[in-house]
Amino acid sequence: MPLETGTVPATDGAQAAPEVFSWPIRVYWEDTDASGQVFWANYLKFFERARTEWLRHLGIEQQQLREQTGGIFVVGQAQLEFFEPARLDDQLLVTAAVASSGRASLTIRQLARLAPGSARGPVLLSQALIRIGWVQAASLRPARIPNRLLEQLS
Amino acid sequence: MPLETGTVPATDGAQAAPEVFSWPIRVYWEDTDASGQVFWANYLKFFERARTEWLRHLGIEQQQLREQTGGIFVVGQAQLEFFEPARLDDQLLVTAAVASSGRASLTIRQLARLAPGSARGPVLLSQALIRIGWVQAASLRPARIPNRLLEQLS
Amino acid sequence: MPLETGTVPATDGAQAAPEVFSWPIRVYWEDTDASGQVFWANYLKFFERARTEWLRHLGIEQQQLREQTGGIFVVGQAQLEFFEPARLDDQLLVTAAVASSGRASLTIRQLARLAPGSARGPVLLSQALIRIGWVQAASLRPARIPNRLLEQLS
Amino acid sequence: MPLETGTVPATDGAQAAPEVFSWPIRVYWEDTDASGQVFWANYLKFFERARTEWLRHLGIEQQQLREQTGGIFVVGQAQLEFFEPARLDDQLLVTAAVASSGRASLTIRQLARLAPGSARGPVLLSQALIRIGWVQAASLRPARIPNRLLEQLS
Repeated sequence: MPLETGTVPATDGAQAAPEVFSWPIRVYWEDTDASGQVFWANYLKFFERARTEWLRHLGIEQQQLREQTGGIFVVGQAQLEFFEPARLDDQLLVTAAVASSGRASLTIRQLARLAPGSARGPVLLSQALIRIGWVQAASLRPARIPNRLLEQLS
Repeated sequence: MPLETGTVPATDGAQAAPEVFSWPIRVYWEDTDASGQVFWANYLKFFERARTEWLRHLGIEQQQLREQTGGIFVVGQAQLEFFEPARLDDQLLVTAAVASSGRASLTIRQLARLAPGSARGPVLLSQALIRIGWVQAASLRPARIPNRLLEQLS
Repeated sequence: MPLETGTVPATDGAQAAPEVFSWPIRVYWEDTDASGQVFWANYLKFFERARTEWLRHLGIEQQQLREQTGGIFVVGQAQLEFFEPARLDDQLLVTAAVASSGRASLTIRQLARLAPGSARGPVLLSQALIRIGWVQAASLRPARIPNRLLEQLS
Repeated sequence: MPLETGTVPATDGAQAAPEVFSWPIRVYWEDTDASGQVFWANYLKFFERARTEWLRHLGIEQQQLREQTGGIFVVGQAQLEFFEPARLDDQLLVTAAVASSGRASLTIRQLARLAPGSARGPVLLSQALIRIGWVQAASLRPARIPNRLLEQLS
């Protein structure tokens, strides 16, 4: 599990294609720490909120899904990079898009940027590759992603 | 930033060498989510608590350090893998050890396991490689890690 | 500090007057705990988000305010009541309104309800009386609320 | 639900009787916010950790209890007062003791202080009265606290 060189992605990576789903997230006191910036673990919450809203946008409500299928998504792996700090009152845009998919897991690529209107411009703050798997909610054991769900996601 | 195959490390990786620093962490309601297990982002808090206590064990108090040097550690990169769920009341042991170090950053390897006495045994729950950099607290700009600090860490 | 009887407020209390500021908040995984409902401490985050947005709605940006005046709001007291659980994917509406105000503190009344469109109806989930004081950010010592700020709040 | 005057309790209140259960809690980055102090909602986590450890000290493991009785404790009301800020690396002591008890709920009094050895002395940071009720975990409906549990608590 070697770490790669922490290079900021080229501009075309930082500026998501127009069709990429993105979700606005505001930075509140709860998100910051004593360094004055957003506490790093809270980006994982931001990424999850955007991922949840992206699923909702595709017609997938996770609570309903659990009741209907008995399954839930869980995170299996994550690769995170942090480039620039975000601060109190900053407005962020967080994207979500499928990077690759299999029968039991999906890898989602997510970017967190300052919103275009902010004084510092649409700076890339953090990016993540997050692998989510499908498990039975009762046992938390891995299972195949239901076909209907795979169709909604593709 | 490709994801590597999520293989559970061999037993000798899961059982930390005796000299590796480890810190006990209990799972409370605040750490869990509606799946019944620890919310994944909270492992980052567990890893940070263990890292902080490991620094303290080496004689490094971060608040003092900031007042004396004007610098703080920040997370630049993280690679996380999640193997097994932890639940309410579980007792964890979380390790911290330097994997590699440079003039402006350190990479820390951390493991979270169930404590040896638990019913399920010392199961490996999660592992992480976390790269932390040194920045000036006022500007959050990268800087060289002070020599005295590097000596304490080696 | 005796606890009062936990009576649900009358309907006219539960249904905020049209002019009361309210802010939509969605329940994500991060907000829930192993009981399946929103972890109680997270309502304090919801109340603070709504309070922050209410201040923003009045033209008050807290980060700017701090840079201009050197002061910040801090919570001094809170009285909280919890009536009904909220769950994953629930949509909430959280209100904020001044209950009373002085020279160094304000008391804000806040309600958290399910949004009108939800299956269970606009159920009252929680209510709070939160006293916030004004302090110098550097020393965290109490100070008089700036006049301009009091005018914006009234 | 009027707010009472925020007077700091007399010294004999701030210094808990020797027999009062208290639990050490360290302040980490995750607990602080951009004001440099502990984010107020996080005291609720501290209070809950101390309450959980107090229950454990009385022989009550909440996860086991849920499996055996089908019930869990939930917070119904809380009154919170905040007196002094806590900062990164501070060591706290948090107490828990029954203030009053009934058939379906208990009121717990909790204090958070700096630990005796700290530079600022055993300053009282926050106090709380927290009413917890007993509910069926599946329905979250109120129920009578099991007799065995009431005996352990008295």
